Amino acid sequence: MASLAPLAVSMGDPAGVGPEVIAKAWAARSIAALPRFFAVGDARAIERVWKGPVAKINDLREVDGAFDQALPVLTVEDAGEITPGEPDADGARCALHSLELAVGLARSGAARALVTGPVSKAQLYDIGFNYPGQTEFVAERFGVARENAVMMLAGPSLRVVPMTTHVALADVPGLLSIDLIVAKARATARGLRRNFGIEKPRLAFAGLNPHAGESGALGHEEIEVIEPAIAILREEGIAAVGPFAADTMFHARARSHYDAALCCYHDQALIPLKALHFDDGVNITLGLPVVRTSPDHGTAFPLAGQNQAEPGAMIAAILMAAEAAAHRAACPNL
Amino acid sequence: MASLAPLAVSMGDPAGVGPEVIAKAWAARSIAALPRFFAVGDARAIERVWKGPVAKINDLREVDGAFDQALPVLTVEDAGEITPGEPDADGARCALHSLELAVGLARSGAARALVTGPVSKAQLYDIGFNYPGQTEFVAERFGVARENAVMMLAGPSLRVVPMTTHVALADVPGLLSIDLIVAKARATARGLRRNFGIEKPRLAFAGLNPHAGESGALGHEEIEVIEPAIAILREEGIAAVGPFAADTMFHARARSHYDAALCCYHDQALIPLKALHFDDGVNITLGLPVVRTSPDHGTAFPLAGQNQAEPGAMIAAILMAAEAAAHRAACPNL
Repeated sequence: MASLAPLAVSMGDPAGVGPEVIAKAWAARSIAALPRFFAVGDARAIERVWKGPVAKINDLREVDGAFDQALPVLTVEDAGEITPGEPDADGARCALHSLELAVGLARSGAARALVTGPVSKAQLYDIGFNYPGQTEFVAERFGVARENAVMMLAGPSLRVVPMTTHVALADVPGLLSIDLIVAKARATARGLRRNFGIEKPRLAFAGLNPHAGESGALGHEEIEVIEPAIAILREEGIAAVGPFAADTMFHARARSHYDAALCCYHDQALIPLKALHFDDGVNITLGLPVVRTSPDHGTAFPLAGQNQAEPGAMIAAILMAAEAAAHRAACPNL
Repeated sequence: MASLAPLAVSMGDPAGVGPEVIAKAWAARSIAALPRFFAVGDARAIERVWKGPVAKINDLREVDGAFDQALPVLTVEDAGEITPGEPDADGARCALHSLELAVGLARSGAARALVTGPVSKAQLYDIGFNYPGQTEFVAERFGVARENAVMMLAGPSLRVVPMTTHVALADVPGLLSIDLIVAKARATARGLRRNFGIEKPRLAFAGLNPHAGESGALGHEEIEVIEPAIAILREEGIAAVGPFAADTMFHARARSHYDAALCCYHDQALIPLKALHFDDGVNITLGLPVVRTSPDHGTAFPLAGQNQAEPGAMIAAILMAAEAAAHRAACPNL
């Protein structure tokens, strides 16, 4: 164990629930069998909302000795006045610089994997951040084109990939293309092999329209776009099936037939994922040279500082990052 | 008990799973505490897939005496050769005439409520049926305009109303209007009072776009259509809230805050309903003078005749019909 680098967990917005769920995850380290990790951010953000022991570290070699007794925190910069639930520009800067440092430690190998706490996009935009979200920022830092960094949401019984993400629903039909679907599916299949150790991933595609278009009666995207994309993938040897009526894909028996559901739009993927796994869903970015996960929830400012935040998703994100890193280490050439 | 009329259950397509799930529901009548009911169709369709006792009746007054010992079946017509899993025109005609008779018995009051088994729309279209589905047919027979007959899907922990139904996803944004939303919501609120005994129904609206449009950044339908509709409803005293990000509406804590979720399109409503209640979801038509429910599944031809069909949804549909009829009888003026 001593030879494995610890995981880096960026704290996210210091006024959000990130500091609290990281601290609660550390408190559950034994029962949840968590690997050693350290938080990156302003230690005061944690002390403000949590009474447990914090070890302020300056050198990652201190993590090993500290982790059993205290939550190791690598402080990046002073976040200014921190009031839970009241985000400000100093906090946003601290969140961004924490992310930057955590990414750098993961790139260098000093951290085995990267887990990112929730940030406020609105606050980040106000200080000049010009990426759609953390995923795109991380992808750029790793030199990966945005279209090759695929967002997967994963819970214990379901993994989903939204093939389009933060766009108006009216724009979705025009954005779906054979090229897009094929690229997302290839990255998903490779990501399932590398990060989850699934040798022959089974991909199931959701139709765009009700009843998957009912042979064209309720829309043509299935026939014109999704089916041709699936045919290309199958020729490449990827186990791709569908398109299926989306409403019949997410009950337990249906879920047992695939390793990931590729969905046409944000809510088609996230409605079933959050209906089933609201408290333990993990966002994992496929296609990066290093594992990156994050809990599938936001800053939840109204909850911050009230000791009400559930650490389940953060615990799941840390565990998934460690497992994915282990799969990659076992088969480095996938 | 003797004063209450029995429930009419139309058998649906004789080659589908309808006959089997009706028979299995009767077999579970004691453990599931089912009210007295009778099937309408060709008794041979049931005998073909089930070994239990069948009582062929000609007069509804026979149901009372027969129900404890055998499944009462009112035969409509000979469905011809019946081969489970292989639908044909004779079967479709039998399904349609069974529906017609069951509706008539419900209209006359001879049946207390109507439960409809699954039909094959493709087979019905082939014999000249020109309604989108059974719901529209039933609405017309009861003299109710289609737009006032609202489809609700209900499971033990979630009720949803799709405000648009069987249309291509690309057409949904154009179909959503303030008038449509207000009409669907009024019918839903009244339906919850009449059929479920909920005095002050709480309606939650889903946004059309991801994150409910994020204040216009991801689409404008929330601001231009859904919010004004909600404002009108609230002025009328209807407890309407939203629009909410659809992906955060369907976990257990969120579901506890509303009695029905009004969704913008088919899959937004049916994905969470079927993810959570695939085996016990019920389709109930609001806005009719008589209660009408049906199990939320289709004919499942590939499963028919193999003794594999689950009767859970049919049992739930019969129970919900009886409960809704009781609520209506208790408060006939709602």
